[in-house]
Amino acid sequence: MTQRATREMIVATADDLFYRRGFDHTSFADIATAVGISRGNFYHHFKSKDDILEAVIMKRLADRAGMTARWERQAPDPAGRIESFIHLLLVNGEKIREHGCPIGTLTSELAKLAHPAQPDAVRLFTLFREWLAIQFSALGQVEKADQLALELLSRSQGAATLYNAFQDRDFLEREVAAMKFWLRDVATTEAAHSTPQ
Amino acid sequence: MTQRATREMIVATADDLFYRRGFDHTSFADIATAVGISRGNFYHHFKSKDDILEAVIMKRLADRAGMTARWERQAPDPAGRIESFIHLLLVNGEKIREHGCPIGTLTSELAKLAHPAQPDAVRLFTLFREWLAIQFSALGQVEKADQLALELLSRSQGAATLYNAFQDRDFLEREVAAMKFWLRDVATTEAAHSTPQ
Repeated sequence: MTQRATREMIVATADDLFYRRGFDHTSFADIATAVGISRGNFYHHFKSKDDILEAVIMKRLADRAGMTARWERQAPDPAGRIESFIHLLLVNGEKIREHGCPIGTLTSELAKLAHPAQPDAVRLFTLFREWLAIQFSALGQVEKADQLALELLSRSQGAATLYNAFQDRDFLEREVAAMKFWLRDVATTEAAHSTPQ
Repeated sequence: MTQRATREMIVATADDLFYRRGFDHTSFADIATAVGISRGNFYHHFKSKDDILEAVIMKRLADRAGMTARWERQAPDPAGRIESFIHLLLVNGEKIREHGCPIGTLTSELAKLAHPAQPDAVRLFTLFREWLAIQFSALGQVEKADQLALELLSRSQGAATLYNAFQDRDFLEREVAAMKFWLRDVATTEAAHSTPQ
């Protein structure tokens, strides 16, 4: 395996372990064992768990940027793109039921640990916040774009937390339907308001 | 100090440490040190961190039951009581900004740890869920009471998670205002709908 492939395997394994078990609960040794390479080779790539965390956050940022780019290709209209974001709750439903939202649970955990990488993890929320704001702007909601983006992020976080707690699929589907209803309302409201301008 | 007072001090200290640092990150020794009593006295009360966790969950359940009872005394009308729940985000704002919601972050963490006490922690959500459903029923929303309770819990969880991540007080206040607006809408909708029945 190339050095680059080895590094990517370490980061992907850590990403998965941090998500499923939590960052603090996953040790440096757990990751090395799960990857199954020699300790020397492992240390060549990462000297500490915090180094791996930074790489995991960068990987998650790249993954989510790829996700939003895909949504843009799949839907030409901003409402359709925002709907793709909402549907993420259903697409990742099984994982969310078991482990919560990978972004929300990481930022919460790092806040409790007062970990210096917490602001970097928040950039994962910021990525979606800014992307959603662009879509709401394109929907005509220029002034409220950032507020609407935060409101939707917040709602989707709440749904993920309670789905993880209660494991009630009907609840999750109702929340997704309510967010889509809200989205249509936001889009229509603007259409009505923008006419006289 | 009486045995009972010692036990309560241990549980209150653990409650605080679990909230501020996380359950997993707080060791049995951390709690004993913070309480500052002899190891023998400590062991007399609790044999393991899991025993302490159970006691912390029971304490939180009792605290929250006391909170809802207080809200009932303070507001005779169900809408005013639900508003007290919404205002909890502002009342505990500073703590939420630093450490998130004590219930949501505990249930999420225990889910990742696949901890056997996770369903007990979820009872903290259930306490609010059932209490809110009673209030929504009293508002006339009998059939949708549980759904409305979950919707509000979810929204308040999302607001707590994003406030903890972004630390943006304006966002928190907007979310609280939006929940109160939603509550008025729910109360009014029922008044309109119930007339023909």
